[in-house]
Amino acid sequence: MAPAMNDFLPQMTSDLVLAFPGFRLYALCAVILVIKMFGVGLYTVRTRSRLKVALNPEDAARFNAQLAATEHPDVERVLRAHRNDLENIPGFLILGLIAVLAGAPVLGLQICFIVYTAARVVYSVAYVKAMQPWRSMTFGIATLCMFALCVMILIRILS
Amino acid sequence: MAPAMNDFLPQMTSDLVLAFPGFRLYALCAVILVIKMFGVGLYTVRTRSRLKVALNPEDAARFNAQLAATEHPDVERVLRAHRNDLENIPGFLILGLIAVLAGAPVLGLQICFIVYTAARVVYSVAYVKAMQPWRSMTFGIATLCMFALCVMILIRILS
Amino acid sequence: MAPAMNDFLPQMTSDLVLAFPGFRLYALCAVILVIKMFGVGLYTVRTRSRLKVALNPEDAARFNAQLAATEHPDVERVLRAHRNDLENIPGFLILGLIAVLAGAPVLGLQICFIVYTAARVVYSVAYVKAMQPWRSMTFGIATLCMFALCVMILIRILS
Repeated sequence: MAPAMNDFLPQMTSDLVLAFPGFRLYALCAVILVIKMFGVGLYTVRTRSRLKVALNPEDAARFNAQLAATEHPDVERVLRAHRNDLENIPGFLILGLIAVLAGAPVLGLQICFIVYTAARVVYSVAYVKAMQPWRSMTFGIATLCMFALCVMILIRILS
Repeated sequence: MAPAMNDFLPQMTSDLVLAFPGFRLYALCAVILVIKMFGVGLYTVRTRSRLKVALNPEDAARFNAQLAATEHPDVERVLRAHRNDLENIPGFLILGLIAVLAGAPVLGLQICFIVYTAARVVYSVAYVKAMQPWRSMTFGIATLCMFALCVMILIRILS
Repeated sequence: MAPAMNDFLPQMTSDLVLAFPGFRLYALCAVILVIKMFGVGLYTVRTRSRLKVALNPEDAARFNAQLAATEHPDVERVLRAHRNDLENIPGFLILGLIAVLAGAPVLGLQICFIVYTAARVVYSVAYVKAMQPWRSMTFGIATLCMFALCVMILIRILS
């Protein structure tokens, strides 16, 4: 490559990626989902601190909490909600980036990203507040979005 | 950038990424692995429903299942298999995308992606069915693929 | 696209990505973090083997270990350290790649990647060795890096 081309690259590359249809929305949803997932983690800490329990001796000493061998059921519930996030969100975000980079149809991407993000936010609230059928319903909607992404990716890479 | 260049970008970008050696195979393996990981999650639900146990009171009421304080050993086994997926697959998929984008040798990428995907599918079956030494063997093979990806990435970025 | 352009693509693409400011450092940190995360997993295996306990009957038989219904507190600690990695690192790595591709300021990226990686390595050691306030402090520093990435992404995509 000529030096002139190399000089031109640094500025060109990021504009190139920002121009991918759906990339900006994808990035926004990724930020929201990672912060939401982190929020569920903080809620675990808050629940433990409200119940004044700790699993690590050094935390029990530090926060003047009771040392427990097993988690309180309220903490267990938040941990299950969080674990479900871990099972779902990283995989979805990786597939989302692949779909954007592979040039999936922008309308399909937009629907998937917006619906998935909204569904997973409601899901977390529904899990922590024990609201059924909201929890199952939003889980199902998010799953459909994930499968739609898979189909869009397969169409692009196999065509 | 000139307007003419900007108009040209949207069509160019996705073809550009699809032209990365190994990208299509990477995307296919990512779809398979995310769906497989999701399948292990569904198997947890199926196992709980077969045993008629639930950990959330609202689920026990809804599915007429028995409320349990701790998981049944059969469910615990599937949860451990699933957790191992969470510990392995997202990290591998991120490294895989980095390796593709960094321009790692295409043959190395192809071997890593195909062998890893096959090994992790067999691993899940072997874990759930308690088949040793298959479980340890496929875990080891998948680990080698992950380290091979790391080496290929380091060679590209440090050269 | 003309054939001549297509011929030119394979060589161009990876150089293009390697030229993204911050990409090489991002890739290096991703390799370090995934291997570190894997190392915590290996430490779980080592701790179980030191205590001569196993949760799967087939492992108890194979390694001549005692079959336990629940994990030993020492194993539980490593599992919590590992789970915290799973809650943090994949999300950070996805945001990191988005920030690089979106063209976030290179100095900001460099600080985030180096500080986050160092903080998470120290965090794991501090968790396993029960060293407070090191554990909380490094967790907090890594969290700040994650939020800084979010801000840099939002500035780029909303501008």
